[in-house]
Amino acid sequence: MQWPFSRRANALTSSAIREILKVTEQPDMISFAGGLPSAATFPVEAMQAATQKVLSEQAESALQYGPSEGFGKLREWVATTYSRDGAEVRPSQVLLTTGSQQALDLIAKALIDPGSRILVETPTYLGALQAFSLFEPQYVSVASDEQGVLPEALTAEVIAGARFLYALPNFQNPTGRRLPLSRREALAAIAREHGLPVIEDDPYGDLDYQGERLTSLRSLAPQQVIHLGSFSKVLAPGLRLGYVIADESLIAKLVQIKQAADLHTPSFTQQVVYEIVSQGFLEEHIPEIRALYAERCHAMLAALAQYMPQGVQWNRPEGGMFIWVTLPESLDSTELLTEAIRERVAFVPGAPFYATAPQSHTLRLSFVTVDPVRIDEGIRRLGRLIANQLGGAAEHLPLV
Amino acid sequence: MQWPFSRRANALTSSAIREILKVTEQPDMISFAGGLPSAATFPVEAMQAATQKVLSEQAESALQYGPSEGFGKLREWVATTYSRDGAEVRPSQVLLTTGSQQALDLIAKALIDPGSRILVETPTYLGALQAFSLFEPQYVSVASDEQGVLPEALTAEVIAGARFLYALPNFQNPTGRRLPLSRREALAAIAREHGLPVIEDDPYGDLDYQGERLTSLRSLAPQQVIHLGSFSKVLAPGLRLGYVIADESLIAKLVQIKQAADLHTPSFTQQVVYEIVSQGFLEEHIPEIRALYAERCHAMLAALAQYMPQGVQWNRPEGGMFIWVTLPESLDSTELLTEAIRERVAFVPGAPFYATAPQSHTLRLSFVTVDPVRIDEGIRRLGRLIANQLGGAAEHLPLV
Repeated sequence: MQWPFSRRANALTSSAIREILKVTEQPDMISFAGGLPSAATFPVEAMQAATQKVLSEQAESALQYGPSEGFGKLREWVATTYSRDGAEVRPSQVLLTTGSQQALDLIAKALIDPGSRILVETPTYLGALQAFSLFEPQYVSVASDEQGVLPEALTAEVIAGARFLYALPNFQNPTGRRLPLSRREALAAIAREHGLPVIEDDPYGDLDYQGERLTSLRSLAPQQVIHLGSFSKVLAPGLRLGYVIADESLIAKLVQIKQAADLHTPSFTQQVVYEIVSQGFLEEHIPEIRALYAERCHAMLAALAQYMPQGVQWNRPEGGMFIWVTLPESLDSTELLTEAIRERVAFVPGAPFYATAPQSHTLRLSFVTVDPVRIDEGIRRLGRLIANQLGGAAEHLPLV
Repeated sequence: MQWPFSRRANALTSSAIREILKVTEQPDMISFAGGLPSAATFPVEAMQAATQKVLSEQAESALQYGPSEGFGKLREWVATTYSRDGAEVRPSQVLLTTGSQQALDLIAKALIDPGSRILVETPTYLGALQAFSLFEPQYVSVASDEQGVLPEALTAEVIAGARFLYALPNFQNPTGRRLPLSRREALAAIAREHGLPVIEDDPYGDLDYQGERLTSLRSLAPQQVIHLGSFSKVLAPGLRLGYVIADESLIAKLVQIKQAADLHTPSFTQQVVYEIVSQGFLEEHIPEIRALYAERCHAMLAALAQYMPQGVQWNRPEGGMFIWVTLPESLDSTELLTEAIRERVAFVPGAPFYATAPQSHTLRLSFVTVDPVRIDEGIRRLGRLIANQLGGAAEHLPLV
């Protein structure tokens, strides 16, 4: 059967990360490739109690069709929680989504026409590029450094006609970097002045190891910022539950688009999550996640310092799940991965995270699902491989 | 804030059904408007047992990210179940979706370019029109009668260049009609001969009151047919769980598109549903749903015969959730609805279900969520209203 594929479907190529993840599921692999949170943090007992409560007290609504906007009480909870953190949020500004990945799809449908210019960080979240690309935008990679996007790169010329800027200010996937307050203020000023919509994708904001939170872009430019939040990294990704906070005029369009996309996010999971979070569960739970991830981050940073040869650079994240490694320019991380898989260690090459001009000597390491002993062993193997590829020292670094 | 909406977003208008449903939630309303299944059929005890089992035995995978294709065991269950009903289905041909509404969105992305001709029944499911319209197709309403689409209307001219035919052969939403076997065979022959993709949307197929199943289009043209199934009408819609069965070459594209849309359908709901259906639960459960819906269908048919004035026509469904009413052409069902709401009875006007040339003297009645006594009362009110609007007999039919 020859399917009459659309232009957007014909343009699809298979995802590098997907193919890699298949290999890394093998049990003897030390995998720094996944973007998965640690299952050790999943709230199993709270889930048991909440599912029983929902099914015994409100099964009829939990199992029935619900509003496309989402479960009312959970919208209120999100609004109240965010109102504490700066600018007020009304429940009518909250749309529940099937993970924040869906929010990217809905926003892309609402704001992207073929050829629309959209501004992204360099590099940026691969899943966002996949969501946006189906709507055939023209990407502009905004110059960024180890602290994130450079506000001065957002000149009037770059902004003119752009549909939005997409940014992850907190512990970005893939780099782990966090945008400093001064840049947030500069970005918000630009958004307000030019009426530039800014998507603030924030799945990792709660994962600051010190429990600090920098002021959100939303608080600084509440009219222009579309804020995306998620329960994936603070509760469990298998529930697929996220949310959009934005001006009601945008939410109204997104609700219509959401209705066409899946009618609504499962009532059952929304009600279960509401039962968990409304009891204050996250206030005790998130510090446990932070402590676990901080320990593993520090283990990886220590291993990197110990095993990486000269010329390899990496950042020191203050939160989140990822470290970004820059190899000497002569190396290609995709080629390195092939070798690494043979040595039973995996990571994600950096190139797919670039909307334009991929830098093939970069790679992403995730530390949250691997214990410190295996982190040490995995980084040791990786360090030797890189040293071998750089040559010279090869004789002194046997790979056995 | 002036949002730079895309062309597709600017074309969105608010849904008539949505606005109506808001009013009909008032408790004193006798509502035949909803497309909701009866909550009396929800498997609460089975859900309780299954959620406990999943959370105590496999919480780690149920709460973690999962494959975009869906939970492996549930894909196998769908494949095995469908293989019994004719042409073999391999698990690799099954994609789990966030309700079958999502399947419509994914397929639209894969097969529709702006201006693509797509063929739909007259009338057809409103939710499909909403999903497809975001991708700006050119609709062709294929001539249909009280038994469904007319195969002879699918001339070579009509088919040429069409991306697909979208059809609901079993107890269609909104009409309740079922496509006879001879027409299925004719349609399948056309699909095979012309390589025409056919979307067979089948949420109601299990709801034949006699427990009979007509041969599916999929069985008759397995290469060309994209079959959509759902757990919404046989378990619970609040779980948002459906599936696509199609040729692997299409499934591969849909998986990539699904990954961009929401990464995957919640692992938790998939595993819970697998626990329920793999125990043979549906074999006892579906006959109970059928019996309940048959009773209510017959109650409504009896009330229609008793209360409707001459000139009003309706069909006699053999399954499903809906009856389709055709008023005398002088009446407009949207105007009638305004009056009806005042009399505390609601339905859905037929016009929005037409992709082109809406027939405003039609309406959809759902009988499954209303008990027979209230069905009788609701249809009595509606009959009087219609008689009054037709005039003449008004004096003899006081509305109090």
